[in-house]
Amino acid sequence: MKTDPGRFFENYRLGETIAHAVPRTVSGGERALYHALYPARGALHSSDEFARACGLPAAPVDDLIAFHTVFGKTVPDISLNAVANLGYAEGRWLAPVWPGDTLAATSEVIGLKQNSNGKSGVVWVRTTGTNQHGQAVLSYVRWVMVRKRDLDAPAPETVVPDLAKAVAASDLAIPQGLDFTGYDFTLAGEPHAWEDYSVGETVDHVDGVTVEEAEHMLATRLWQNTAKVHFDATFRPDGQRLIYGGHVISMARALSFNGLANAQMIVGLNGGAHANPCFSGLTVKAWSEVLDKAETSVPGVGAIRLRLVATRGGAPFQLKGEDGKYLPEVLLDLDYWALMPV
Amino acid sequence: MKTDPGRFFENYRLGETIAHAVPRTVSGGERALYHALYPARGALHSSDEFARACGLPAAPVDDLIAFHTVFGKTVPDISLNAVANLGYAEGRWLAPVWPGDTLAATSEVIGLKQNSNGKSGVVWVRTTGTNQHGQAVLSYVRWVMVRKRDLDAPAPETVVPDLAKAVAASDLAIPQGLDFTGYDFTLAGEPHAWEDYSVGETVDHVDGVTVEEAEHMLATRLWQNTAKVHFDATFRPDGQRLIYGGHVISMARALSFNGLANAQMIVGLNGGAHANPCFSGLTVKAWSEVLDKAETSVPGVGAIRLRLVATRGGAPFQLKGEDGKYLPEVLLDLDYWALMPV
Amino acid sequence: MKTDPGRFFENYRLGETIAHAVPRTVSGGERALYHALYPARGALHSSDEFARACGLPAAPVDDLIAFHTVFGKTVPDISLNAVANLGYAEGRWLAPVWPGDTLAATSEVIGLKQNSNGKSGVVWVRTTGTNQHGQAVLSYVRWVMVRKRDLDAPAPETVVPDLAKAVAASDLAIPQGLDFTGYDFTLAGEPHAWEDYSVGETVDHVDGVTVEEAEHMLATRLWQNTAKVHFDATFRPDGQRLIYGGHVISMARALSFNGLANAQMIVGLNGGAHANPCFSGLTVKAWSEVLDKAETSVPGVGAIRLRLVATRGGAPFQLKGEDGKYLPEVLLDLDYWALMPV
Repeated sequence: MKTDPGRFFENYRLGETIAHAVPRTVSGGERALYHALYPARGALHSSDEFARACGLPAAPVDDLIAFHTVFGKTVPDISLNAVANLGYAEGRWLAPVWPGDTLAATSEVIGLKQNSNGKSGVVWVRTTGTNQHGQAVLSYVRWVMVRKRDLDAPAPETVVPDLAKAVAASDLAIPQGLDFTGYDFTLAGEPHAWEDYSVGETVDHVDGVTVEEAEHMLATRLWQNTAKVHFDATFRPDGQRLIYGGHVISMARALSFNGLANAQMIVGLNGGAHANPCFSGLTVKAWSEVLDKAETSVPGVGAIRLRLVATRGGAPFQLKGEDGKYLPEVLLDLDYWALMPV
Repeated sequence: MKTDPGRFFENYRLGETIAHAVPRTVSGGERALYHALYPARGALHSSDEFARACGLPAAPVDDLIAFHTVFGKTVPDISLNAVANLGYAEGRWLAPVWPGDTLAATSEVIGLKQNSNGKSGVVWVRTTGTNQHGQAVLSYVRWVMVRKRDLDAPAPETVVPDLAKAVAASDLAIPQGLDFTGYDFTLAGEPHAWEDYSVGETVDHVDGVTVEEAEHMLATRLWQNTAKVHFDATFRPDGQRLIYGGHVISMARALSFNGLANAQMIVGLNGGAHANPCFSGLTVKAWSEVLDKAETSVPGVGAIRLRLVATRGGAPFQLKGEDGKYLPEVLLDLDYWALMPV
Repeated sequence: MKTDPGRFFENYRLGETIAHAVPRTVSGGERALYHALYPARGALHSSDEFARACGLPAAPVDDLIAFHTVFGKTVPDISLNAVANLGYAEGRWLAPVWPGDTLAATSEVIGLKQNSNGKSGVVWVRTTGTNQHGQAVLSYVRWVMVRKRDLDAPAPETVVPDLAKAVAASDLAIPQGLDFTGYDFTLAGEPHAWEDYSVGETVDHVDGVTVEEAEHMLATRLWQNTAKVHFDATFRPDGQRLIYGGHVISMARALSFNGLANAQMIVGLNGGAHANPCFSGLTVKAWSEVLDKAETSVPGVGAIRLRLVATRGGAPFQLKGEDGKYLPEVLLDLDYWALMPV
């Protein structure tokens, strides 16, 4: 059979490195589509001139374009037969991606644990995205639950990687040349600098977007993500297309402009949970909580650690019920580091 | 509170200049999306080669891309709390926008008039879009009705600007280098030159487009227009998303190719009314009326003043009822100047 | 009347050449949109680096972008009043199209045959797409059934062109510089080379995409295809918008990556039938059959002739019923040549 059935749990070997297929060159086209698909307004990614005033040669593409492109490469090898996308950790954006760059991705299997039912297991991979110069632009750990096809295949030795709860602020990569000392808060859209945010502070981003089938499919295809559930309405018994979790990430991040306009660049991904599935017709809203703050080695640039929560409505700032489980209206609980002007 | 509530009527001061946030670099991506969103076929904006044959260095982006981008910048400051978008005047396109250009916008408050009910008022602004060279590319007056938040705020002195009924033909800016003397009517798609149109002539553009939620949201986001009613189906009691009026402008203008293929460049906006709201599922059609004609200082280039009417069906050439009000099927009544080969 | 009613059967003359309007410059924007609209993953069209490793200066735009752009140009002159799109033959891709290229198109009328009912007739045209250097990039024959407007117009002399059943392998144009000797099958996504396919072999491409109104309209507009039935829900009595047949071609071709990832470039179009209409809400699937194989003059490059069948579900590999007619679930039956690494 020439078609690719994807990998099953028993096909992964600890320590192996998988080179993912179909490198991708991004251009101003991807940037324009990103702005059409999400209400993204971060000035550094919107304007070459603004980016130059911040010490960069031009506006990089949105940091999540890099993430989605690299993630999309991994789907055929990592999550085609995944039952669940369980988590992210130790994500670091290592270099900006510019129009014209070509991205490729590899993943190393760093953990394996068969489930007690013997029908599936958890696979941990560390994925690295690289540009055409061989330079790493992004690295993150993801773990997924994957079905076994051959239930008789022996369980591998259980290895659960020891993952950091959060990327240390000192490990965040600041893009070369970035300089916020002449930062224009008026052009950026909000006056709030790094020092104006305090740990524990919450922000309701207010705005909402009702999502459409055509839009999430355009987005997910753009990243060459091939997971069938996003595209084929006959795949699930309920006739619904499951929206790619990354679509919710980008939507929530874009909505967070309203209150976090100066959280310009994403540089770390500490963790994330797709708490509940998202479907067409729902209205996505978002709120954030400041989890931590740190100085960086670059003058004028502060790091802020944010919890970004996407919901399908309901009151903001509610996350889990008394049972410790995510509330049904919570779609996403993401933990990331961004760079802000001080 | 860190989120932006937008300005209310009492927040505007006569004479103040508002620098709008989030400059935007446009590329071939925005052009491609424009062609995907609207049936735009004007050869000058479609083909670098055709544009060069008309004396330009390359194809500029569609004139309405410049308009929407600049307009989108103004929304957070001007119309986030607007009850109604009342009118446009004195619009002039001052220089073409090329892929790679970065647009920013400022608005000067030129008029204020509190309504007699004390709950809202009309704000007139003159908005200027500039490119990365500081060159003005577009200027227009818009007035909107804006709610008051503090009903006790004193009414400002009433100042109603004296606006021209139409931009004088002699004030139209002809793009540098534009030369229609070797104009190729075959490649442009229609044989009708400027002298073939007479004042009072009407053209039914025949074609129709049924509009979809995904499309108008993609378009409106692309211009970074943040008005909530376009995106959030929970915002209005009827659960409908109001379509951005500019989407109807671009749709009607694109449809007008059929009969006005040689009305290549928009250079003036004399007025405009969004007569009735547009919603997903309606089929937009268009007709035009020649309001005026003028020669220009450039050999081979004529100016034509057009009324462009978008409808949701119904017989063409019907605009208002006996009561002087727009018919319910009329969506848009726009008055603009375009340049045509003589 | 200034609007274009399109041509009717009696308006075609054997041997005349029609220069189609509105040349079009393509960019990275069209490429990005193509990847958003279809699950296209061919590495040669996705990555500049991969294309360079195959001897090309950069990644060309997808071969079907060239086809759709040229086809779109012809619609106002050839198929605006067409009752049916009957077939394709003798299609050859003659040179890659690069971002920045400007495409124009001409068609020569090579056959005419009035139907016995006197109300319509068949028109055969050979269409040629050229770039800004005057170089032909694509040539194909298409025939359509077109209505007569003047039923009294005399029937033209019947001339039915003698068309090849398939483009001879020796007539396929291999892009200059193409070299598959260092082809990276891992990055391309599948290990199957030209020699791994045998004539008669069938491949079920497995994946499916449920199509949306917004998506097919975005695509069809992008190619500046003006056929009313694709956009106007009030045009057909059933209120449905007919999906452009080319949308189905691109969808099926993109789906065929799964099993034919190395069929990198389309170089010949031998024939094609739009067996049944496609509408929004259907889920498109695809299967292929290897019809022929041929060596080429270029080391490492083989030609493979494929039948590509798009369906709206149903079991794969079923094409026609006992009556010799296409099964109702078959949407497309396409016969093309592609280039593969040996």
